[in-house]
Amino acid sequence: MNKKLKIAILTSGGDAPGMNAAIRAIVLACNRYNYDCIGVYHGYNGLINADIAKLKIEAVNNIIQQGGTLLKSARCPELRTKTGVQQAINTLIKEQIDALIVIGGDGSFTGLLAIAEQWRGQVIGLPGTIDNDLDGTDYTIGFATAINTAIEAIDKIRDTANAFDRVFIVELMGRNSGHIAFNVGVACAAEQIISFENFHPSQAEDKLAELAEEIYAEQKSKDNSYLVVLAENLWPGGAMHLAEQLKEQFNIDCAACVLGHIQRGGSPVAKDRILATKLGVGAVQAIKVGKSLLMLGERDNEIVEVALSETIKHSKTVNENLVAAQQNILALTARSN
Amino acid sequence: MNKKLKIAILTSGGDAPGMNAAIRAIVLACNRYNYDCIGVYHGYNGLINADIAKLKIEAVNNIIQQGGTLLKSARCPELRTKTGVQQAINTLIKEQIDALIVIGGDGSFTGLLAIAEQWRGQVIGLPGTIDNDLDGTDYTIGFATAINTAIEAIDKIRDTANAFDRVFIVELMGRNSGHIAFNVGVACAAEQIISFENFHPSQAEDKLAELAEEIYAEQKSKDNSYLVVLAENLWPGGAMHLAEQLKEQFNIDCAACVLGHIQRGGSPVAKDRILATKLGVGAVQAIKVGKSLLMLGERDNEIVEVALSETIKHSKTVNENLVAAQQNILALTARSN
Amino acid sequence: MNKKLKIAILTSGGDAPGMNAAIRAIVLACNRYNYDCIGVYHGYNGLINADIAKLKIEAVNNIIQQGGTLLKSARCPELRTKTGVQQAINTLIKEQIDALIVIGGDGSFTGLLAIAEQWRGQVIGLPGTIDNDLDGTDYTIGFATAINTAIEAIDKIRDTANAFDRVFIVELMGRNSGHIAFNVGVACAAEQIISFENFHPSQAEDKLAELAEEIYAEQKSKDNSYLVVLAENLWPGGAMHLAEQLKEQFNIDCAACVLGHIQRGGSPVAKDRILATKLGVGAVQAIKVGKSLLMLGERDNEIVEVALSETIKHSKTVNENLVAAQQNILALTARSN
Amino acid sequence: MNKKLKIAILTSGGDAPGMNAAIRAIVLACNRYNYDCIGVYHGYNGLINADIAKLKIEAVNNIIQQGGTLLKSARCPELRTKTGVQQAINTLIKEQIDALIVIGGDGSFTGLLAIAEQWRGQVIGLPGTIDNDLDGTDYTIGFATAINTAIEAIDKIRDTANAFDRVFIVELMGRNSGHIAFNVGVACAAEQIISFENFHPSQAEDKLAELAEEIYAEQKSKDNSYLVVLAENLWPGGAMHLAEQLKEQFNIDCAACVLGHIQRGGSPVAKDRILATKLGVGAVQAIKVGKSLLMLGERDNEIVEVALSETIKHSKTVNENLVAAQQNILALTARSN
Repeated sequence: MNKKLKIAILTSGGDAPGMNAAIRAIVLACNRYNYDCIGVYHGYNGLINADIAKLKIEAVNNIIQQGGTLLKSARCPELRTKTGVQQAINTLIKEQIDALIVIGGDGSFTGLLAIAEQWRGQVIGLPGTIDNDLDGTDYTIGFATAINTAIEAIDKIRDTANAFDRVFIVELMGRNSGHIAFNVGVACAAEQIISFENFHPSQAEDKLAELAEEIYAEQKSKDNSYLVVLAENLWPGGAMHLAEQLKEQFNIDCAACVLGHIQRGGSPVAKDRILATKLGVGAVQAIKVGKSLLMLGERDNEIVEVALSETIKHSKTVNENLVAAQQNILALTARSN
Repeated sequence: MNKKLKIAILTSGGDAPGMNAAIRAIVLACNRYNYDCIGVYHGYNGLINADIAKLKIEAVNNIIQQGGTLLKSARCPELRTKTGVQQAINTLIKEQIDALIVIGGDGSFTGLLAIAEQWRGQVIGLPGTIDNDLDGTDYTIGFATAINTAIEAIDKIRDTANAFDRVFIVELMGRNSGHIAFNVGVACAAEQIISFENFHPSQAEDKLAELAEEIYAEQKSKDNSYLVVLAENLWPGGAMHLAEQLKEQFNIDCAACVLGHIQRGGSPVAKDRILATKLGVGAVQAIKVGKSLLMLGERDNEIVEVALSETIKHSKTVNENLVAAQQNILALTARSN
Repeated sequence: MNKKLKIAILTSGGDAPGMNAAIRAIVLACNRYNYDCIGVYHGYNGLINADIAKLKIEAVNNIIQQGGTLLKSARCPELRTKTGVQQAINTLIKEQIDALIVIGGDGSFTGLLAIAEQWRGQVIGLPGTIDNDLDGTDYTIGFATAINTAIEAIDKIRDTANAFDRVFIVELMGRNSGHIAFNVGVACAAEQIISFENFHPSQAEDKLAELAEEIYAEQKSKDNSYLVVLAENLWPGGAMHLAEQLKEQFNIDCAACVLGHIQRGGSPVAKDRILATKLGVGAVQAIKVGKSLLMLGERDNEIVEVALSETIKHSKTVNENLVAAQQNILALTARSN
Repeated sequence: MNKKLKIAILTSGGDAPGMNAAIRAIVLACNRYNYDCIGVYHGYNGLINADIAKLKIEAVNNIIQQGGTLLKSARCPELRTKTGVQQAINTLIKEQIDALIVIGGDGSFTGLLAIAEQWRGQVIGLPGTIDNDLDGTDYTIGFATAINTAIEAIDKIRDTANAFDRVFIVELMGRNSGHIAFNVGVACAAEQIISFENFHPSQAEDKLAELAEEIYAEQKSKDNSYLVVLAENLWPGGAMHLAEQLKEQFNIDCAACVLGHIQRGGSPVAKDRILATKLGVGAVQAIKVGKSLLMLGERDNEIVEVALSETIKHSKTVNENLVAAQQNILALTARSN
C-alpha cells in the first residue's frame, strides 16, 4: 500500500460540467497520498499519441467552478481498433502508469474495458455525462447542471410564450434517454412531456392528433401558453418537424426551440461539484487499496462501487413514481381544465 | 394641465424584457398625477376587441423584475385594414381615452400612426424590442437583456467548444439588423462575426472559402475552439446550412446552435429596468404637457423626443468605431496567430 | 374514499424556494381528485384570523419558478398558547376543513402537532426549509437552491479574493446545523470550513491560532486567496469578529461577508421544484387514503412517510463520508502545499 | 510610428469585472501592431518589485468572461513615497518600457501621474472601478456588472421580504458615491433609496422618523414588503445600525443585509466586456499616435480622451433626471398609496 503510485486521468466523450471538479479532487487526493498524477489530453487520443503531462496542484486551483474539462475531451475511433488499444497500452507501460481513471459515459467505459483486457494496471471509471443514462449510479456528473441550465432557458421561453399565449416545442438533449427531458419537463411545469418514458415513435400519428386536440381545448378555455418538452432523437424529424406538423395539419401557430449545446457547458451546480469531489476522492482511495475494473457512483446518497462491465449493459430508467405522478396527476389535471 | 386624464397602454410586437418595468413606471406616474391608467390586452387586438381593464397600482407590484409583459402582446394584422383601425379608434372614443402609449417596435409605431391620423387623442411610442433597430434612440428596452442572455448562453457553449477544440456556429436574433449579433460577437470574443455590418449574402461563396481557410490555420497552430456568431436572416439557409457547407465542402466538423427565443425572455438587466422606468415616467410627463406623435428614446444618456414618423424611416446602424475595432484590430489579430 | 375533501395548505417559518412549487402540486392534485383546496395566508396566523381563500388552478399558473410563497409566511407566537391553538381549530372546524398540509420546518411541525391533539382532521407536514436540518428526509425543499445561491455568490467573492490574494471569511445561514456551510464549503473549494461538524465554540482560541498559522503558510508559499466558510451561530461574535481577531492578533488582513437573506430567495433550482412537486402530489394522495400525522420526505430518492413526532426529535447530521473526505483528503492536501 | 513599442499594463485598486476584458483587448491590439506587451503583477507593487512578465496572446484566451484580474491587483502605499515612485520608474527604465497603461480608479491615476512627472514614457489610464465615480466617462469598467449583481441579489431578498411583508435595509457598495445605490434602488423598485444624492448624514434623525412613519403607513394600507436601499459610508453606523434604530425607537421589525464583496466579482455583463474592449483597443491606438497623460473613457457612446489630471478633481454625479424622477414621481407615488 505504501508504494508511490502513478495515476493517470482522462476525460472522454461528451464533456459535462463537474469534470473539472473531479479532476481537482483526484489531483488533491493524489497529493495527499503522495502519488503522481498524470493528465492525459484529448481523451483516449492522448494515450495513443502520448499527449500527457504531470498535473500539479496549482493546475487545479480555481477549476471547481469551471465548465468543460481542462484535460479536453474527444471521440476516439482509433480505440475501437486493436492497434489503437495497443498504442494506448504502450503509452501506459512506457510511462509506468499504475492506474487509469476515466471520466466519461458508457462509450468511454467500453474503451477502458478494452484496455483493461490487455493491461495489468488498475482501471476506474467515473460517471461523467449530462445524460444521466449510466446504470449503477443515481446521478452522473453533469446531469444536475444540465437540467438547471435547461430550466433557466425554458423559464425565459415561458416569458415570451406567456406574452403571446403561444405554443412552444422545446427539444432537449439526453441522447437515447429521457432523464433530462422528463425532469426538466416536470420542473418547468410543461403542459406536455414527450419522452422515452411515455412515447414511442410509432405512436406519432395518434399523439399528434391528441396534442392538437388538447391545445385547442386549452387555448379555448383560458389565456395561456402551452409548452411541450421533447426528448431529442425521439419524434420523427425532431421539434422543428413537430412544429410544422401542428401548423400544417392543425393550423396551430407554434414555435420550436432546440436548446442544444448550452446544456453541456456552464459552471457546475453544487450537486455536480460535490458529487464529482466525492467520486474523485473515492477513485484514488479505491486505487490505493488495490481495486480495479470498477465504476464509482452514488446510490441512495452513498458512494458505491459497480463492476464496469455492468454499467454498460443497460441504460438507467427515469424514476417510476415521478413518471406516474406526472401522467396521472399533473398531466391529467392539466387536461381537465 | 389639471384635467384628470385617462391614459391607455399597450405592448405590441415581439415582447422584450423591461416592458413590464415600463408599464409599472407609467402606472406609478399616472398615480402621481392622479390620472386613470387603462391596460389594453394582447396588443392592438385589445383595442379592437375592447379587451381592457383599469390598471391599479397593486397590479404592478413586483413586476419590474419580470420578463414578458403582463398586458400580453400579439401581432395584429387587422390593424393594417381600415376597419381594424376604425374599431380600435371606436374603443378609444367609447372609453374616453385621452392618450395612448404603445411600447413596441417600428411595426407597432406604424399602427399607432394609422390610429393617430383619425383620432384626436395624444399618442406616444416607447421603443420596446430586443433588436435595438429603432432610429432615434441609442437603446431600445430589451436589447441589453437580450445580449446578456446571449452571452451567458455562448459562454456555456464556449466551455464545450473548448473541451473539443471545436468549431461552433451560433445564430442570434436581431431581425434585419446586426445589433445583437455584433455586440454579442465582440462580448464573447467570437473568432468570426458574420453580421449585416460586414457581410452581404452575395459574398457567401467567398466568405465560406475564407472561413474554411482561417479555421484550418487556427486549428493547425493551436489547441482551441473557433466560434462564429451569425446574425439571423443573413446567411443563405442559416447556421445549420453553414455548418453543413463547412462539413461537406471542407471536411470541417462543426456544430450549429440557433439560440432562439431564450433571447426574448428573462428578468431584465439593470439597464433595461432603468431605461424603461425613465421612459415610462417621461411618457406620462410628455402627455401631461400636451405632447403627441412622439417616441421617447435615450440618446447620449438623456431622454429625447423624436417624431414617431422619423423612427420608422430607417434602421439604426451599429456603432462604427466598434465595427472598425473588431475588423481591424481584433479580427486581424486572430488571423495573424 | 370518494368523499369530496376540503384540504387547507399553509406555509410557515422561514420561507424557502420551492414552497410555491409544492403549493402548485397540491392544488393540481386536489383538482385531479376533485377536492377543494383552501389557501391559508401568513402561516398559522391565517388560521387564527380566518385569513383564507379558495385556491383555484389559475392561481398556481407560472409559480413553479417563483421564490417566496404566494401564501406568505410568518412566525406565529400565538400558536404556542392554548387560546391560539383553539382559535386555529375553530377556523378549521368552521370552514369544514378535512385535512391540513403545512409546509415548513420543525417549529411549524410542533405547531401542527399541537393542533392535531385536539382536532379530528388529517394533518400532513412537508419539509420546507433551506437549512436541511429535518430528520427523516435527505433533502428539504429549498436546501438545493440555497446552496446554489451561496456558491454563486462565493464564486464572485473568489474572483476578488484571487485578485488580491486575500483572506475572506464568508458566513452562511443554516440556523444550528452545518448542512449549508459544509456543502457550500466543499463545493467552493474553501480552504477552511468551520461548521458544526468539525468545530465547537469552546475550541475557538486554538482554532484561531491554527487558522492564522495555516494562512501564513499558504500565503508564503504561493499567490492565492484563502477562503473560510463559516456556519452562522457558531463562532463567538460571528464572521465579523473572526476577521477582527485575525487582524488584531495576527495582523492578517481579511474581509468578512455575511451572505444573509439572499440565501432564502430566488427561483428554485430543478431539484427543489421536482422534490416539491413529488411531495405535494404525495401529500394529497396520502390524505386520500386516510393518512395523518405524517411528514412526507425523500430518502434514497424515494418518497417516504415519517411520523411527524419523529421529525422534531433530532436534527439531521451532514453525510459522514463527505466530512471525512473533506477533513482527511481535501483539507490536509491544502495544508501540505 | 513604426517603432516596435513595448507597452506595460497593470490593474490597480479595487478589482472590477471587465478588467480582464481590457487586458485582452490591449494584448490583441499590441499583437496587431506587433508591439510587445508586458504584464505587471499586483498593481504598482509589480513595478516596484519588478514582478513582470511578457503577455502572450494565449494568456488572454478565454478571459473576456472572467471576473477579477489575471494581473492581480493591490493597494500600494509605497507609491505615495518618493522612493516607491523612483523604484517603479527604475523598473520601467530598466525594462525599456515605452508606455504604461493603468486600469483603475482615481487613486490609481494619482499614482500614475506621480510616475509621469519623472518618467519620459507615455501613460494612459483606463477607468476600472465598480463605483462609477470617475469624472470624464459616463461609465467605468465594472459598474454595469456590479449593479446587475446587486439587483439579482436584491430580487432574491425581495422574495423573502414579500413572504413576510417585511422591511429590509440593503447596504450597497459605492465608496463615496451613490451611482450603485441609486441605480440599483431604481432598478429594484426600492421603496426608499438613501444615497448621497438625496440624503446627508446630518439629516439622520429626521429621516429616521420620516422613514418610520412611511413604513407604518405602507404596512397598514397593504400587504407588502418595504425595501430600503442604502449607500455605504453614509448612514451613521450603516445598515445594521439603521435596522436597530427602527426596531428600538419605532418597534419596526426589520432585517439588514450588507451585500459586500459579491458586487466586485462575477463574469462581466456585455456592457463591461464591450466597453473594456473598446477602451483597451483605444489605449493602444492612442499610444501608437504618441498620446499620453490621458484617460480614455466613454461619453455619449463615443470613446473620449480626458486629461488624467482632470479625472481626479471631482467625482461624477448621478444623472439628475433619474434622481428627479425617483424623488418626484416614483417615491411620491409610493407614499401616496
